[in-house]
Amino acid sequence: MSTVTGHITEIAPRSGTAFLLGKGERLTVIDPCGEQVADLLAFNRVDLDEVISSGRTLDYASRLFLTIGDPLYSNRSNVMLRIVEDTVGRHDFLLTPCSRDTFRIIYGDPSPHQGCFGNLASALAPFGIAPDRVPVAFNCFMNVAIDSTTGVLRVEPPLSRGGDHLTFLAEMDLVIGLTACAAPQSNNGSFKPIRYSIDTSKWCYT
Amino acid sequence: MSTVTGHITEIAPRSGTAFLLGKGERLTVIDPCGEQVADLLAFNRVDLDEVISSGRTLDYASRLFLTIGDPLYSNRSNVMLRIVEDTVGRHDFLLTPCSRDTFRIIYGDPSPHQGCFGNLASALAPFGIAPDRVPVAFNCFMNVAIDSTTGVLRVEPPLSRGGDHLTFLAEMDLVIGLTACAAPQSNNGSFKPIRYSIDTSKWCYT
Repeated sequence: MSTVTGHITEIAPRSGTAFLLGKGERLTVIDPCGEQVADLLAFNRVDLDEVISSGRTLDYASRLFLTIGDPLYSNRSNVMLRIVEDTVGRHDFLLTPCSRDTFRIIYGDPSPHQGCFGNLASALAPFGIAPDRVPVAFNCFMNVAIDSTTGVLRVEPPLSRGGDHLTFLAEMDLVIGLTACAAPQSNNGSFKPIRYSIDTSKWCYT
Repeated sequence: MSTVTGHITEIAPRSGTAFLLGKGERLTVIDPCGEQVADLLAFNRVDLDEVISSGRTLDYASRLFLTIGDPLYSNRSNVMLRIVEDTVGRHDFLLTPCSRDTFRIIYGDPSPHQGCFGNLASALAPFGIAPDRVPVAFNCFMNVAIDSTTGVLRVEPPLSRGGDHLTFLAEMDLVIGLTACAAPQSNNGSFKPIRYSIDTSKWCYT
């Protein structure tokens, strides 16, 4: 396993954050305890209408499961991030950030948590990003099994163990949104933190 | 097979259109020749920031393949459309509308067609909808096979035959974008028209 370099920041269970990531910098998302999910969003820092796109990315990859070497495209078909390290190999790019409506519709919860959607919307607001601009997130470590005949999706426990991580290289200047996921189903029923670090050395960017 | 009622409009091969659909009205999308795909978008007519969401829809359905009875949700988790008739049973809600970039990246075409994305953007512009607001479309009749182990996506010929159709009931006042798909892979290599009709009788709305 690669060593994670740089200052490490912790995102508390069921919360989220947002921050800048410069072109050529590397963002490492760490699952410190195992079986936890982190929803990741990316926006072009200089034109916030350019945003990460699951549809463009899956279309061009012709594959649902992304790992080392795979680019994450924007709605304008530009590469925003590229996966450069991955100690797990199973993530999701189908499902939207959990929200009050998710908990109401899927879990039947009458007084639901604001979820990753609410956490992302709150964290992104200071950057001028409105809730309606939150798209499908890249769900680090999320493990969604697919029945290829019926199309049924089943959220299973992540394959990540404590210390597993995923590293992204930024190919443009970005605003990043990141959560420690708030949905019981995603993390095998136990809310845990997520950690991240940013490597600004840019040694790896070509 | 149900009889399609109302005036029928044809969308020429590799083109698109946009129109209003009122709450309670039914939109029928017809594949007149067979093996053709129609990309469908929906926006809330009175607040265009509310838009059809593949992520919300697939999340709440917990299923990739949608058919009769399934609602199509917006980014705000409201039901926009509901599938009420379906003579095919296999459609796609993963892949983005084909575009100049699709043809450049996937097909290596140096002088590409503007694709369904360009066709939708042009048709939606008079309604005040910007290209950046075009999300993943509901791809009527598109047949995407999924390998559940590797996640590999393979675009196969549609299962639709001449005259097959899909009917949606509008659950809010909408702007609809609709195409006769411009990507060779989607329609087994032959560009064909799509037809649609709108039933305004509202007899079926409860």
